[in-house]
This record gives sequence, C-alpha cells and structure tokens, in this order.
Amino acid sequence: MHIEADNAQGAGPSQTEYGKNVVNGLRKEEEIESSAVQKLSAEHDHVLKSFRLLIADLCQQFKGGHPGGAIGMAAIGMALWKYVMRYAPHTPDYFNRDRFVLSNGHTCLFQYTFLHLTGYKAMTLDQLKSYHSDRVDALCPGHPEIEHEGIEVTTGPLGQGIANAVGLAMATKNLQATYNKPDFDVVSNHTWCMIGDACLQEGVGLEAISFAGHLKLNNLTVIYDNNQITCDGSVDLTNTEDVNAKMRACGWDVIDIEDGCFDIEGIVAALNKARASTDKPTFINVRTIIGIGSAVAGNAVAHGAAFGEADVANMKKLYGFNPEESFVISDDMRKFFQELPARGQELVQDWEKKVQEYEAKYPELGAEFRRRIEGRLPDNWKDLIPSEFPDKPTATRASSGLVFNPIAKEVNNFMVGTADLSPSVNMIWKGKVDFQHPDLKTTCGITGNYSGRYIHYGVREHAMAAISNGLAAFAPNTFVPITSSFFMFYLYAAPAVRMGALQHLQVIHAATHDSIGMGEDGPTHQPIELAALYRAMPNLLYIRPGDSEETAGAWIAAIEAKKTSTIISTSRHTLPQLAQTKREGVAKGAYVLEEVEDADVTLIGVGAELCFAVDVAKELKSKGIKARVVSFPCQRLFEAQSLEYKRDTLQKHRGIPAVVIEPYAPNGWERYANAAICVKRFGHSLPGKAAYKFFGFEIGTMTGKVVDYLGQIRSDELLRHEFVDL
Amino acid sequence: MHIEADNAQGAGPSQTEYGKNVVNGLRKEEEIESSAVQKLSAEHDHVLKSFRLLIADLCQQFKGGHPGGAIGMAAIGMALWKYVMRYAPHTPDYFNRDRFVLSNGHTCLFQYTFLHLTGYKAMTLDQLKSYHSDRVDALCPGHPEIEHEGIEVTTGPLGQGIANAVGLAMATKNLQATYNKPDFDVVSNHTWCMIGDACLQEGVGLEAISFAGHLKLNNLTVIYDNNQITCDGSVDLTNTEDVNAKMRACGWDVIDIEDGCFDIEGIVAALNKARASTDKPTFINVRTIIGIGSAVAGNAVAHGAAFGEADVANMKKLYGFNPEESFVISDDMRKFFQELPARGQELVQDWEKKVQEYEAKYPELGAEFRRRIEGRLPDNWKDLIPSEFPDKPTATRASSGLVFNPIAKEVNNFMVGTADLSPSVNMIWKGKVDFQHPDLKTTCGITGNYSGRYIHYGVREHAMAAISNGLAAFAPNTFVPITSSFFMFYLYAAPAVRMGALQHLQVIHAATHDSIGMGEDGPTHQPIELAALYRAMPNLLYIRPGDSEETAGAWIAAIEAKKTSTIISTSRHTLPQLAQTKREGVAKGAYVLEEVEDADVTLIGVGAELCFAVDVAKELKSKGIKARVVSFPCQRLFEAQSLEYKRDTLQKHRGIPAVVIEPYAPNGWERYANAAICVKRFGHSLPGKAAYKFFGFEIGTMTGKVVDYLGQIRSDELLRHEFVDL
Repeated sequence: MHIEADNAQGAGPSQTEYGKNVVNGLRKEEEIESSAVQKLSAEHDHVLKSFRLLIADLCQQFKGGHPGGAIGMAAIGMALWKYVMRYAPHTPDYFNRDRFVLSNGHTCLFQYTFLHLTGYKAMTLDQLKSYHSDRVDALCPGHPEIEHEGIEVTTGPLGQGIANAVGLAMATKNLQATYNKPDFDVVSNHTWCMIGDACLQEGVGLEAISFAGHLKLNNLTVIYDNNQITCDGSVDLTNTEDVNAKMRACGWDVIDIEDGCFDIEGIVAALNKARASTDKPTFINVRTIIGIGSAVAGNAVAHGAAFGEADVANMKKLYGFNPEESFVISDDMRKFFQELPARGQELVQDWEKKVQEYEAKYPELGAEFRRRIEGRLPDNWKDLIPSEFPDKPTATRASSGLVFNPIAKEVNNFMVGTADLSPSVNMIWKGKVDFQHPDLKTTCGITGNYSGRYIHYGVREHAMAAISNGLAAFAPNTFVPITSSFFMFYLYAAPAVRMGALQHLQVIHAATHDSIGMGEDGPTHQPIELAALYRAMPNLLYIRPGDSEETAGAWIAAIEAKKTSTIISTSRHTLPQLAQTKREGVAKGAYVLEEVEDADVTLIGVGAELCFAVDVAKELKSKGIKARVVSFPCQRLFEAQSLEYKRDTLQKHRGIPAVVIEPYAPNGWERYANAAICVKRFGHSLPGKAAYKFFGFEIGTMTGKVVDYLGQIRSDELLRHEFVDL
Repeated sequence: MHIEADNAQGAGPSQTEYGKNVVNGLRKEEEIESSAVQKLSAEHDHVLKSFRLLIADLCQQFKGGHPGGAIGMAAIGMALWKYVMRYAPHTPDYFNRDRFVLSNGHTCLFQYTFLHLTGYKAMTLDQLKSYHSDRVDALCPGHPEIEHEGIEVTTGPLGQGIANAVGLAMATKNLQATYNKPDFDVVSNHTWCMIGDACLQEGVGLEAISFAGHLKLNNLTVIYDNNQITCDGSVDLTNTEDVNAKMRACGWDVIDIEDGCFDIEGIVAALNKARASTDKPTFINVRTIIGIGSAVAGNAVAHGAAFGEADVANMKKLYGFNPEESFVISDDMRKFFQELPARGQELVQDWEKKVQEYEAKYPELGAEFRRRIEGRLPDNWKDLIPSEFPDKPTATRASSGLVFNPIAKEVNNFMVGTADLSPSVNMIWKGKVDFQHPDLKTTCGITGNYSGRYIHYGVREHAMAAISNGLAAFAPNTFVPITSSFFMFYLYAAPAVRMGALQHLQVIHAATHDSIGMGEDGPTHQPIELAALYRAMPNLLYIRPGDSEETAGAWIAAIEAKKTSTIISTSRHTLPQLAQTKREGVAKGAYVLEEVEDADVTLIGVGAELCFAVDVAKELKSKGIKARVVSFPCQRLFEAQSLEYKRDTLQKHRGIPAVVIEPYAPNGWERYANAAICVKRFGHSLPGKAAYKFFGFEIGTMTGKVVDYLGQIRSDELLRHEFVDL
C-alpha cells in the first residue's frame, strides 16, 4: 500500500492545467520586492528568507504538506509574533494572552514555526521536524490541535476557525463587562484570526462574520491571507465578489495591505490600528503571493505539495543561502526572537500583580473571577436543580427549562444561546440579560450589554455551535456554552458539534423537537437518522431523557462531563411523569425501570417513547407476557459501564430477547436489542399523535408486534441470530 | 399525550416579552394602506383581504401553523401568480414553466392557497383545508413537498430553497446554451425564489448568493419578504448588516419595494424588471408586515401560531367581511384567477409547437433535447465503463475517474461539480468545459460558458449539494448532478444531501479520502463516525468500493438509482486490485468474495479495508483457521436482498461468527457481524500507513484479534450473545 500524494501523476489535473498564467494579473514578485524593500530592515529580510526556506525544507523532507500559504504569510506572522501580539511563550496558558486562531489550518507550519522561534518550550526543532512524519507523539499534526502548547483551537475544516475566533472575542467582552473596573482592566486581550480565501466562501464563516459585525466586536481582527489561490486555481474561478464592500456591509472596518509579503511596517501599523478600533471588528485584507520565492509562486500547486528538491535548492541560491544546508536557523534569527519569552513573562507578572490588587480591592468579585479563571462552578450548582417535579404531563423541552434555568440564572459560567428559537426551547431564565453591544436599540425593544449571557445567534445553527466552541476554548470551563435549536437543525451544526467533541470542549446542546412526535413540520424536521450520527460520534453524549426526572439526570451528566460535549434531546410534546425514573439512572446510560422475574422479553424505551415501553409492558402483561422495561437514554454512558452492569441491565445473555422502541433508524441498537420497533424511512407531516399512529407507534400495534416477534423466534430459531425490524 | 403548541403558556417567553413595540419603527398599517391604496384596484383589495382571511381561517381551524408570513406576502403572491409567472396549472410539469421556490417553506399556506386559486386540480378547497389536519393523504404538509402538484422542491430547513433556486437557474442556463438557437428559444423560463430573513442568515444561503452572483444568473430573482421578524423578535436582535449593500457586493442587482403589503403595481414592475435583467441576478427587497391586519401584526408571535378566534373574527369585521363565515372565496375572487389555466395551456401549446418545429429543423439536437426532457440517458452509457482495469495498485478515487470520466464526457445529463478539490477527486474528463458566464476571464486562464458541465463550486460544500438538488429538481433526470469533495466534508453538506434523498432526487456524491488511511490531515479530516449517518439515512446509498472493479459497480448502482441519492466513498491511497471482486456483487450490497467449507469465521471487509480482510484470511489459514471473506460495500443495497440471500452471504445463522474490519465507528455493523475491528475514538494525524498501524489495522494485529476472539467465545458462551469490540 502506498499513500499517494494528492498531486501525483494521474491523481488529478496536471500543473499545466492549473499552473499556467496564475501569476498574471498579480503583481510580480520582483516588483513587490523592489517597492517594499525599504520597509524591510536587513534583519527582517534575513528572517523572512530563513523562515520561508525552513518551511520549504520542512515540507520537502517527507515530500508533502502545505508550504505555499505558510511561506506567503511569513511577514504577517513576523508582525504578529514579534511586534503586536501579547503572549507568553513560557506561560502558554497565561489567562489574559491574545488569542491567535489559524483558521486556514492547513498552513499549520506557519504557526508551528513561529511557536518554535518565539520560544515555546514544547516546540523543539526536533518536534518541528516531525511534521508529516510517522512519529506518534508529534506536536505537528497536519492541522493545529488544541492539545498542544500555544494552540488555541483545533482548526482545519475551513470556516470553523473564524467562528471560533468570534467566540473567543465574545468571551473577552463578557469577562470585561463582568469583571473589569475603571481602575482594573483584568481582561484586555485581543483575538487575531488568520483566514484564507475559503473562510470567506464557507457558510459558517459568513454566518460568523455577519454576527461579529452585529455585535461590534472591536476586539477581533481577521487577517485575510489574500493570495487569490485555492486548490482549483485562481479564486476568480468561483468568487468574484467585492469582499471589502461585503465586509463593510456586515459592519466591519476594512484595511488593505498591498505588499503583504514584505511590508512589515504596513502590516504592523494595520494590526495596531485594528487593536485600537473602538466600535467595529477589523478585516485586514493582505495581498500575498502563495509560495513566494519558489518556482510555483502564485500557483495552485504551491498549496498542497512540496516544491521538490531542485526548486528548494534554487530558492536557497536565490536567497543567498547554501543550497546544501537545510533547517538553518542562524544566530541572527535566534537573536531576533530571543527577547520574546522574557517580554511574555513580564506581561504575566504584571497581570498577576494586577489581579492580586483587584482581589484585595474587590474581594467578592475577585473570588468569583478566580473561580472563573480556574474553570470551576459554584459548589452548590447541583442544589439548584429541583429535587422533584410537578406530576403533570410535561414536554421534556419544558423540563429542560425547569432543570436548567435556575442554574443558568445563578452560575455565570453558562452562556446560553439559541438559533432563533427562544419561544420553543425554553432556555430563557427570569431576568436574563442579552449579550449585545450596549448601544444596540432593537425594534422589539429588547436590549442588552456585553455582560449579558443570553445570545440571539439568529438562524445560524452552524456558527452558533462553532462560536460556542470558541467560548469554551477561551480557558478550560471558564465558560460552559449552551446552544439550543430543534434537534434536526443540529445537522446544520454538526461539523462544529464534532469539532467541540474532538477538542474535548464542554459544550451543551439543548436540542428540542426530537422524534416524529414533533409533528406537523413534517419529514424535513423529523430527525429519523440523526441520532445515529451522534451516537457514533466519539466524546459526545447524546442523551434522550424520558421525563422531567430523567431530564435532570441528563443535565447533571452534561454539566459533570468537563471534557465532553453533550446533546440533550427533548420532546416538543408533553410526556407523562413516570414513577420509576431516576436521575442517577441516566448517569449510567441505561437502567432497569421495571424488573420482572422469568421475563419473556425486555422492552427498551428511549426518551419521548419511554412511556410507550411502559404501556406496552402493561398491555403485554394483560396477555400473560412478562416484559421487563429498560430506560436507555444514552448509549455512550452505558458503554462506559462494567460488563457486569451491562449484562444485568439487558439480560440478553440469559436468552431474554430485547425489543427497542424508538421512531428513529435502528442503526446501532442492534448491539443492545434483538428487534426494533423503529422507522427506516423519512417521516410524514402529521400532528404528533397522528404521526405516531401512522408509523405504528400505538400501544396496541406495538404490543401486537412484540407478541408476533416472540412467536416467530419460537418457531424459527434462526431468527435469534438475526436482528429483526418489526 | 398532548402535542403542545410552541407558544403555549409556559413553553417560552410570553407575547409580552416579544410583542411589545415590535410595530414601532415599522410603518403602521394604516399609513401604508392610505398611501398605497391608489396602487390597488378595488378588485385587488378584495382579493388580498379574502386571501389574508383565508390564511387566518386555515390556521385557526386546527389552532396552529404559520399564518403571519403568508399574510404579509399576499400582494407578492398576487403579483407573481396573476401577472408575472409563466406556468400552466393544468399542465403542472410543463417543461419550460417558470420555477417558483418557497425557501421560507413554513409559509407554505401562501403557496398552497395560490395553487388552489390559480386552478391546480389536485389542490381542492377540501385539500387546502387539510393543513395541519391528521389526514394521511393531505397535500398540505407543514412545508411544501416536491411530490405534490405545483411544488418544485421540498423546502423547510432554511437556506436550502435559495440554493435550490440557484441550481434551477443554472439548469435553465445550461439547457439554453446547449439547445437554444437564435430562432428557437426552446428553454426560456425564469426562476423565482421567495425568502425570509433566515435565508440571509443561514450559511448555505450566503454561499449560494455569492456563487449566483459570480455566475451572473440573470434568470434568477430572489424576493425577500422583509418583515424584519423572526421567532425571537425583531431581526435587529441578531442582524444589523446593510443587506442591500451586501447583495450588491455579491454581484446582484437590488430593487427596493417600500409598501410590499399593498403595492401591486410596484411589485409587478420590479418583477418584470428582474426578468429583463441582462447580466445579474436580482434581489427584490420587499418591506412587508408579518400578520398584517391581525392584532399581532408586526409581532414575532404572528410567525408560528394561529391568531385566535377573536382576532380572526375581528380581522373579518375590519375588512368588512362576515365574521360568522369562514373559508370564503367569493365569485369575484374566483373570477380574478379564472383565466389562468387557459393562459397556461396556451403557453404549453405554443412551446410544444415550437419544439416540434425545432425537432424538424435540428433533428439530431432535437432528438437529444427530447431525450433530456424525458430524463433518459443514452442507451449505451454502461458500455462506456471499462470492462476491466489495469492490475496495478490504484486509489479508488482514481478508479472513480477511470469509471466515470468517460461517461461524464459523453453523456450531457451529468453536471459535475467540486468544492475546490479538482486535483484530488479526479472528476475532470479530457476536454471538459467549465460552467461559467462566457465573459469571465480568470487569473489562471481557465474560462468556460453556460454549456459547460464542470462546476467550480468553491469551498462551499453545503451549497454545492443544495444547488445540485436544484439541478436535479429541474425535471426528473434531465440533469444528474455529481458533487465531489473529501468524505469528511460531506458533514458540511449533510443537510442538503439529506434533502436530496428525501426528495428522491438522483444526485451522486463522489466522496474521496475516506477512512483513516487518508492520513496526515488528521482527526479533523478522518471520518470516524460519518458513515453511521449516511448508512442510517433513508433513500441514500452509501457505497464503499474496495477496488476499481467494485468502483465500477458503485457507479453503476448510483446511475441506475433514478430516485435515490448515492455517496460513492473512495480512498486517497492506492489499493490492490482483487481477483475476486465483481461489479455485479456491489449491486447486491454484499457478496461472498472467498468461500470456504466448514468456516470458523466470516471476515467482513469494506472499501479501502477489503484488502485487509483478504490478507487476514490468508494469515488465519496459515494458523489453521478457516475464514470466509465477504465484501460489504453497501448496507442499504444488502438490506434490499431476500432473507435467503442475506443468510447465504453472512452464514451467521449457521453459528459462524462474523468479524467486520473497518476503521469507522462500529455502529450499525452489529446487525451483520458479531465483533468489530473498528475505531471508537477520533483519528490521529499520521501518514496513512502509520495511522492504520496506530489503530491496530496491521495484518498481524488483526489476525491476532480474530484468533483471540474465537478463543474467547469458545470459553465464554455468553459472548456469543453480545457484540464485541476487538
């Protein structure tokens, strides 16, 4: 087996197709060099050249990777890490550091190399050289990963990073409005985000841009590596919009940089101007040339392939370097960056001193700020959940409000948002304040300020989840973001939900209107197959509680899962309160709701249909059939239990067949059940009760199916080896 | 159980919270009426009032639904259906009809009611009254559905419809460029798309808008029902951008209509101007008032709840109607619309005559056009697929090119697109022409025209899939759209892939870089859990072929599935060509690759890892263990086989345990296998071979796991009842 490079022969269009004329229309490298050189010191020039050659070498060693973007962005990186950003290489988690997000994550070598040069201890030269190696403990994966020193968020799927950056900037705003005092700016960091062309094409990026403009996040700067090249060729193959005008229409300030490969002075000035912005986020449109200095400069093939030995050697010659030497970091280059760790430690010490004085002057607020820095909730958070609930039929989406609103009200780690479904998702607590720019005057009269913790994300599910990842990534558990929408729309949000789970971020998604019971909105809104995705997604809890008590259990599990994302999936329609449910049971993923000796069958009930399992068991009893009932709100939590607990709960090993009842695709239930009363087609627009009936989820129908099934497996022993759709 | 209305007491913020002051800042109803009345004839006035009352009644009967938008948009609908659109109520599928897309699908009553009034036969008054009823055969589901007369696409999940409309307009452009002659415009239809505020917030809508502007689709008009209200309140809670400036920056013409509730004349003029546009798509920004005439006019609660009996009665009184009467359609109103079916039939006859003359004058092209109209492929399409393939190791993404490029080249039903991954997905055929505006001059020198069939969608996976749905929806199988990207990014596209499957549209998604074998790009790009979604998704074939021969089988299955969407999931890395694979086997979903008598175990191999199963079987043989091998490219195709075939293939019923080998989450395999060599965590950034090793997918390791498992089930009989992760 051979892993083929993407641009290998036969794997796609040749260089010829995409190469020709790419540089035409762009300013030629020589022109830029001659016009910009005066803005470059000799030292700058040396460092830029060295940096670019280092990138070329790092890609060449394993003949792969993404050199072009990193090389094109070198001057931007120098401006950021040397002159503008406030950070501490020796205290990477310094709380008030500027956040840097590489949204065009495939250019990760750009970031890794600056981390090395600026003195992050983990990023040794040896580690830097692990890029694209088969070293399992490498700190240089193909895209930046949050687990590693100096990386704020994992990026790579395009558009995610820019939305994360919006969340990071919102986190700063909220902390500032909550904790800063006129004499103490204990939080003052800025968020910087590099993007490529793709982040301006991806929907999630466009949603986030629009929302950041609305919020007037002046502490956010997006730096556009405008090289006008994507994999297919020049960007104008697919995008010819006026991007600056579009950004201005979205409420952003725009600054243009023409000579982005060399104009250090201009870039630094633009970045400083952006940091000083008082009322808008800033978009810096920096014209660069991908792979500048190489033979494929300005060409799409510079994007995702090493340049080849000859070209790398030639670059070195052109730059006056020794073509025989690789990975050269001169003493001059080391010297250029050497002050940065000390400068960073000064920032850390100044800030720590400031916080101590703040704690002395404002002891209560100071203690709370410290709690937030340490990512703790108040010890009593669990006491805020009602110990019992009204016995009347209640939709679990309403139960979610009963359980969580008191916590949201009291505990300011929680930032609660909705994708324009406030009236449906019940996440508003009494007295909630919206997170908004304080000057905003809305037509409907609802205003807010940056200390508010209720977020109207608009009809932007994907950005909601991606921004929430940014909030969560600000510092571990300082914020616990909540999102809310209909469960079906978590398919829109799925790429970001995935990124949250992948990054071990605690984000809780309150997903309502699950199951076909949501009714009239019909098949476009009925989530037949979506649970299969989230049950398979690593590090994500997909929990379907069956009543208010189980909803309490779901929220407790979610809030206790400090390094895991959770979807709490609730019903639109009212459900009976079941006597035997228990919140502690939810923590185990599944538990026995009704036990019976010498059972003929186990009925597995889930979420909104748990009550069906209870009723079918009752009906079966009247026919002389003994049915156990297992409530099964969360497969992943159940998987974490001991084999013994799992066997005791399911009793499959005793030959008792299990039937699961859930109007979703059965995929995955085959592990726990022998047969399914499920749905294998798309839904149907009918009122909830009628939809259940249409799909055979009436007690009599289901009871009949179970009776028939038990008869079938008596007469056809082979069926015991097979999973049966009833 | 009671299905609760979303705005029922306790389910969310009260009317008070969202109701107050909403009308402030908007022009009051009375003002508009007085200023606009002269633009309204008495007849118009009567019809608008009647229409609005009908909507109110239709929602009131079952106390639910979405009245506000439909009522606000009444004048727009009148302008479209009475004065502007070219369609034929009695020949709903008239090929050259204007296409109308209701992207804000929750306002479906708007469309249903105009379908009734304009004479669509299926939409009787009785049917119209089925909205929100429990009638199973209702033609008025909660969102418009493509299956029903007069509906072009199923909409509802916001943002989809506007992208579909872009696809419909592209279909027209392509047919025009391919078939129209100076003296014969056999295709001349326009696409009209209604949107609400949400379609301007959703990322997929923004992607589609940007792309439509790039393509200069002057045959597309988007009509913005600008009521400034969403569920949460006024739009300025979340969006304060300058939408007109943004649309202009994206390359659209913009027309404003101030009095959108009444200014029939102005709306008609704007629509006609939009149809006459020569170089840009048109955005008509129509200011309306949601629920106008009701007590909740201009208020968010008008969006998704019936007005209540008292308010409906009051509306009738205000309008001079009898509050005791409901569902009133006066003779005057009938008369107003009565000419439309005949006018439509004239269009149909004129067009049919024109096509006959065209066929006479251009017999070859005419025959082809007829074939396209009828949605047929040339009879010989399957002969274009190589009957055999080179024996050398080949990545299945390259196999995809070998199989499909010859078809794409010859058969112009296929429109092939990529989300900026041309060099990786191998979907370019020799001599392909890009679908572009003919005047486009790109920096990289690649140009095209509207007859081109290769589409650079940009980094817009979601819009790519949604636009493809529009292409496919133009007329059954006239176009068969192909999309392409890395498999992982089909999570971005998932909501649109779902809509294609739901609508029974034949769209084929060429998804490459599946499995952890894709390598260095790491966990963000390695699709551990995504297959579980697509295997659970109804009416979608998720096919993972194991070599070139199986890739041929995958494409044949996809092309033969006229009413089903397909994902063909291929490898980045090279795979051996296996002697026993056969394309006919793929059609059955799974088939026996290697049979052996008295087998100890069945190994299920899938896609890129099928070769592992073959090698493990060999290794097991050397240890005296007899292993059968089953190739299992597609679960859904296998499910469609007879019970007998399924048993013969898997042999589980004979007590032979089956082990599946696939580096994905095992969810769903439990139906076919007893144990899994799978992956239950996120991936890891390593070169493909090293990634396989890291996750235990080396032949020796896997062989050892199977040997151990067979030992375990001999010693612990209980394990036979359970699914085991190896």
